Amino acid sequence: MINVAIMGHGVVGSGVAEILIYHADRIAEKVKDKINVKYILDLRDFDGLSYSDKFTKDFESILNDDEVKVVAEVMGGVNPAYDFVKKCLLSGKSVVTSNKELVAAKGAELLKIAQDNNVNFLFEASVGGGIPVLRPMAQCLAANEINSVKGILNGTTNYILNKMIVDNMDFDTALSLAQEKGYAEKDPTADIEGHDACRKVCILASLAFGKHVYPEQVYTEGITNITLGDVEYADGFNCVIKLIGSTERLADGKITASVRPTLVSRDHIISGVNGVFNTVMVNGDQTGDVMFYGKGAGKEATASAVVADIIDCAKHLNARKYLFWEDGSDDYVVCSDKAVKLYIYAAGDDFNTLCTSAEALFGENASYIKNKFKNEIAILTDKKPESELLKAAEQLKANTVKVMHTLF
Amino acid sequence: MINVAIMGHGVVGSGVAEILIYHADRIAEKVKDKINVKYILDLRDFDGLSYSDKFTKDFESILNDDEVKVVAEVMGGVNPAYDFVKKCLLSGKSVVTSNKELVAAKGAELLKIAQDNNVNFLFEASVGGGIPVLRPMAQCLAANEINSVKGILNGTTNYILNKMIVDNMDFDTALSLAQEKGYAEKDPTADIEGHDACRKVCILASLAFGKHVYPEQVYTEGITNITLGDVEYADGFNCVIKLIGSTERLADGKITASVRPTLVSRDHIISGVNGVFNTVMVNGDQTGDVMFYGKGAGKEATASAVVADIIDCAKHLNARKYLFWEDGSDDYVVCSDKAVKLYIYAAGDDFNTLCTSAEALFGENASYIKNKFKNEIAILTDKKPESELLKAAEQLKANTVKVMHTLF
Repeated sequence: MINVAIMGHGVVGSGVAEILIYHADRIAEKVKDKINVKYILDLRDFDGLSYSDKFTKDFESILNDDEVKVVAEVMGGVNPAYDFVKKCLLSGKSVVTSNKELVAAKGAELLKIAQDNNVNFLFEASVGGGIPVLRPMAQCLAANEINSVKGILNGTTNYILNKMIVDNMDFDTALSLAQEKGYAEKDPTADIEGHDACRKVCILASLAFGKHVYPEQVYTEGITNITLGDVEYADGFNCVIKLIGSTERLADGKITASVRPTLVSRDHIISGVNGVFNTVMVNGDQTGDVMFYGKGAGKEATASAVVADIIDCAKHLNARKYLFWEDGSDDYVVCSDKAVKLYIYAAGDDFNTLCTSAEALFGENASYIKNKFKNEIAILTDKKPESELLKAAEQLKANTVKVMHTLF
Repeated sequence: MINVAIMGHGVVGSGVAEILIYHADRIAEKVKDKINVKYILDLRDFDGLSYSDKFTKDFESILNDDEVKVVAEVMGGVNPAYDFVKKCLLSGKSVVTSNKELVAAKGAELLKIAQDNNVNFLFEASVGGGIPVLRPMAQCLAANEINSVKGILNGTTNYILNKMIVDNMDFDTALSLAQEKGYAEKDPTADIEGHDACRKVCILASLAFGKHVYPEQVYTEGITNITLGDVEYADGFNCVIKLIGSTERLADGKITASVRPTLVSRDHIISGVNGVFNTVMVNGDQTGDVMFYGKGAGKEATASAVVADIIDCAKHLNARKYLFWEDGSDDYVVCSDKAVKLYIYAAGDDFNTLCTSAEALFGENASYIKNKFKNEIAILTDKKPESELLKAAEQLKANTVKVMHTLF
């Protein structure tokens, strides 16, 4: 029998408890051993559950119980999760977590502590909820050098953008609907400003390229400035707007990392990822593009990924998984100036001047959608170094200019 | 140092040798040990390679060398691969293979031998080439009961169908082009008749549901009867035609398994899987739909999956992976009669009689495309028990009737 503790009995934590307790037989069959939930840590009272006797409000009781070999941290937030996880690892317990904020902020340090103490620190559920992403990346791509990772990492923003695209709903209405449906939180900042996706980019980049990437190193832009006008112009260029998290290895050993709204060609498989679904596309030097897709959130999906990690720990109590990365450095994440195609929106008072300046600056290889009625022009540029295109955008005879990246 | 042998130096085998030999340092860093290719078994001569000294024509030299801990079988075909693999496992060597024919025919038996001898038998590359599918299915979905697995499992047929759909190319021309480009073999039977996809369905179904499914138990239909007319009618129903492999768990513990051309709604993410790409969609009771996507074939992609399995074996010489299924049984794979939407094509001499009989049989909830010029009608039926729809199709006043399943 392997004893585990669950720290946190919120949405994910209760899901983990339910799977482990209600499906105990099925899991025992797979693990060839019984997994017993010995403690559930939560400050709140949960009376009337069939497993109410397992609750404790005292972290020390878990920490000091040598019978507990695996701890699931599903509290969220950096504190006190960081302190608890660190103490568990130091005392020789394996830890699994769904806490992307914790892993993005402290991953390298916690992985090192796990290594030093010969235990596992796993966090499959921190990226893509129930979609297996990190494990296949780490293991199956062992024979690959990874070139880039990109994807749709936040279901809330994808749901909102999808509503704008398909139902012509404006941003505020779509956000309200997402909140109503439970896809967006009351304070939606972390989702709509891109912070949540940013943390996932940190984890993906750290794992893919072996050095920790911190949230403040990632260029992060949310979707609050996307208008129905942008959606319509994107459609005119046969594109949809998605919030894309992306990281790429450069030739000099440095990397790029960003989260930003992006025009994705309708011919690209990622354009078909709708609703609350997430996707991660990994480009390896041997495999080419490999994509993982599924529901990126939700109680059952995320809990099942946590449980899979618990099972993996239970089966490898004396064997370390090769999930590891080093600490990062200040100058590791940079901006590259590679050739890109940009979407540029510009509005001005004088429509003819606007259009003439656009065509003079971006030439005949760019595509244009001119909207005389609104004094606006949308440009899909030719592929050129980003700095060159941004410089040209500055010279547009316009009052408002908005630039987005593209994915073709 | 871990010694390995590669059996077969064809497309995949040479790729495996190249990765292991030319990227030895990178791999050593990941494994924390050196992987040494000690033998390459092939009856042909390969002079002038930097590793020509490793070749042997004698299987016994590999079998009898106790230093060889891991053997990669990349010869293809059931014989003599089966005999060689069995002997290696029995002598305590872990085996990895890309050979879907072997796994589909002998998987349960070889897994049992591996288990009895406490070694690993891994075959990630046998399904989806370089796409990690089997490992994430086995491990990350450990907490799930799998309901169904479906996907595009053959790149050759997907390439041909794609050419028919996008370029309006007829089947024969598309096949010739695929052969020219090296996507189809000179004898394309195994691909276009669905046999290759069938073997992959066997492996996926066996792993997903725990009992071996044999090729002859899978209803298998290829793409040779698909016409440009079908492609056009499918388009009229907002669908594309894909060769879909599928397996589903039924309530009574039995399963269904099939390979057949299927109308896939353009709103379904699978419809966007084009060219030689493959995809596998797994529906778990906790995760919902999870999809894996990538290039399903190709030297580098497949070789990299084989190498990943070798690395996994090398890192777990004394630990068994929990990849296992039992032997199958005759009455395990059945036909279900659940409610489906079918595509029915019918042609007759008398257009009016044809249309009248169709509408009388399938009612106003079906969709119809009537082609008076060709005396044809295409029907997208309402969702009803399959047997009922097939019975109705038989009663059509038509000379020719063709039925396909759909995926919405």
